[in-house]
Amino acid sequence: MFEKFLTKRIKNTPSSFIREILKVTQNPEIISFAGGLPNPISFPQEELKISMNRIADKYGAKIYQYSTTLGLDSLRQYIVDRYKKNWSMDITIDNVIITTGSQQALDLIGKVFVDEGDCVMVEKPSYLGLLQAFCMYRANFVQTKLNDDGLDIEDLKKTLSAYNPKVAYLIPNFQNPTGLTYSKENREKVFECIKDKDMILIQDDPYGELRFENDEKIPYIGMNKSDKNIYLGSFSKIVTPGMRLGYVIAHKEIIKQLETAKQASDLHSNIFGQYLIADYLLNNDLDKHIEKITQLYKTQANAMVDAMKEYFPSNVKFTIPKGGMFTWVTLDEDADVLDVFNKAIEKKVAFVPGHPFYVNPDKVNTLRLNYTNADVETIRTGIKRLSEVL
Amino acid sequence: MFEKFLTKRIKNTPSSFIREILKVTQNPEIISFAGGLPNPISFPQEELKISMNRIADKYGAKIYQYSTTLGLDSLRQYIVDRYKKNWSMDITIDNVIITTGSQQALDLIGKVFVDEGDCVMVEKPSYLGLLQAFCMYRANFVQTKLNDDGLDIEDLKKTLSAYNPKVAYLIPNFQNPTGLTYSKENREKVFECIKDKDMILIQDDPYGELRFENDEKIPYIGMNKSDKNIYLGSFSKIVTPGMRLGYVIAHKEIIKQLETAKQASDLHSNIFGQYLIADYLLNNDLDKHIEKITQLYKTQANAMVDAMKEYFPSNVKFTIPKGGMFTWVTLDEDADVLDVFNKAIEKKVAFVPGHPFYVNPDKVNTLRLNYTNADVETIRTGIKRLSEVL
Repeated sequence: MFEKFLTKRIKNTPSSFIREILKVTQNPEIISFAGGLPNPISFPQEELKISMNRIADKYGAKIYQYSTTLGLDSLRQYIVDRYKKNWSMDITIDNVIITTGSQQALDLIGKVFVDEGDCVMVEKPSYLGLLQAFCMYRANFVQTKLNDDGLDIEDLKKTLSAYNPKVAYLIPNFQNPTGLTYSKENREKVFECIKDKDMILIQDDPYGELRFENDEKIPYIGMNKSDKNIYLGSFSKIVTPGMRLGYVIAHKEIIKQLETAKQASDLHSNIFGQYLIADYLLNNDLDKHIEKITQLYKTQANAMVDAMKEYFPSNVKFTIPKGGMFTWVTLDEDADVLDVFNKAIEKKVAFVPGHPFYVNPDKVNTLRLNYTNADVETIRTGIKRLSEVL
Repeated sequence: MFEKFLTKRIKNTPSSFIREILKVTQNPEIISFAGGLPNPISFPQEELKISMNRIADKYGAKIYQYSTTLGLDSLRQYIVDRYKKNWSMDITIDNVIITTGSQQALDLIGKVFVDEGDCVMVEKPSYLGLLQAFCMYRANFVQTKLNDDGLDIEDLKKTLSAYNPKVAYLIPNFQNPTGLTYSKENREKVFECIKDKDMILIQDDPYGELRFENDEKIPYIGMNKSDKNIYLGSFSKIVTPGMRLGYVIAHKEIIKQLETAKQASDLHSNIFGQYLIADYLLNNDLDKHIEKITQLYKTQANAMVDAMKEYFPSNVKFTIPKGGMFTWVTLDEDADVLDVFNKAIEKKVAFVPGHPFYVNPDKVNTLRLNYTNADVETIRTGIKRLSEVL
């Protein structure tokens, strides 16, 4: 009844496919690999309770008052220090803005950089939250093929020369939805291809800390070599998603534009949560906490991979995640994953069909599995059930 | 250096005038009436500390996990119950969405209803946060004259027939920046003018609860009579702004569209804060708390009005607020308020020049004063200083 009042952008945005799926999976008999929730073990509940009482005593009214759009200085400084330590990243506090989760970072970047019709390059498949956010700004998406070691360089070159994208959005570590990570060599090749282009490169990294092996951390694409790089990070997967706290690291001129956009969007992010997370981070060993999370996720990922190897027919392919929260399954080319989904629900197991991760989902033969919210036994049972309909 | 990458919308949005002013007023020797901060007395700190410990014990991981886009059911239900009790408003939980402060409500409404060039009617002067938010969606603003008793009906009729606005944005109670309130008669006349129009009417009401006298509460314009009414409310002025929690009440089909827009904007608002505020509201007497706030603000408002009467030259006019946080001063028609501002800073007193509240600020002779963050003595001293440059 309000159709005539609606904007082109909202009519253009699909209602969430995943939300519809999650409704189906509310039945407690169904084993669901459809969600993307961190395991509650990743929330340091006792420590957060200590921190909340400490900040209430220490800061009084400040934790409840209006605050600055850029975010709490001590939290921004913590981020600077961590990225300097981990990556020797050449940044100061002026390069950081706190956002209401990474999703808001995507929205703000869209506000600042994506005019109607602007070409945005994303991976194929890509994160659905980015597709939704930029859909609102009526981006013209182009998807570049993703291989096991990162972007397909030939396809990337073709995309760049054919479309000259203004913005690129990549998830180089433990990508959502595929679980794949770009190799060091691939990152260098990607940078060679893009370094002379007039293109903003967003590297979204919510999962980078969830690394199962203690092997070399691979630097971001073009790190410390480009003013046009934007890095996204989040406390959602390593402390708590419920506080909705993410951040953007970028050139200070970009941060200034994001600040203007954020002021019009929500003035500032929850300041209580910022004090809380900052106090937690400064009084606890985050790396030790992350180690606890990754050990659990590694066990769960291994259980899922082992079960898939054991039960899945040999024509079904899947990625072997070295971190993060997801694996990605590819069925026969002519398989219809929606058909498989309906049969799986009958068998009481659920997943996310690949559709929402594509710009133009037609016939889709892929699906996403999450392993962080089920124990090893349940994972084995669920994968066995799923194998019966593949 | 990023100019060529920026969107039309961000280039179109003025950087915050007020933020620049607030920088000037950081000097502690300056008495500032420029801000818009609630007095810390409005934060029930002890009770919130009890609530945060209670929700940590009671709900465990839930207060840290991802949550639903529409918001916490118990908080939405509290809002429904309160509006039913106070206004006999005909709503259910399906008519409510929680937002990251009222500012996000404005942003989401812009996303859903404001296409580039759409005509949006606002008061003259209007709330600068709305102007910023809708500027991002490239609204075509038209301002309608505001009188002491509400909208100027003749000017409203002219605006409606000349521009046929798609959306109207009004603040009927203790308006920001003027402090004015629409009379019951005026609201009825406004509704007569607009009821047959194809127009979405937003009524933003962050200050409505801050009523100095126990006289009759005046119902919203066209309440329970129009599907196209959107009501905005907020916990910022009556509990805490730092949690960034506001809400929208509207037809459920509108709420569904806002939900899609919100999912793309920040997934959901801080769920810890929602549990916290809900627990506080359900275990304390909000009306008693509000009474404490309004008694303080009334004393401060009276002190400012009395001092203005005593010290201001007779050619200077000002509004007499019956609630809220602001009064509005009008100088001689040929006065230049920026000139007055610079002289006032020399005298060590600050205010917000009227500019950011107008769509086309040219020569402006008005200014906003906030009285909620200074004690009675400071208010008198500040007004005396200001009078010396008027």
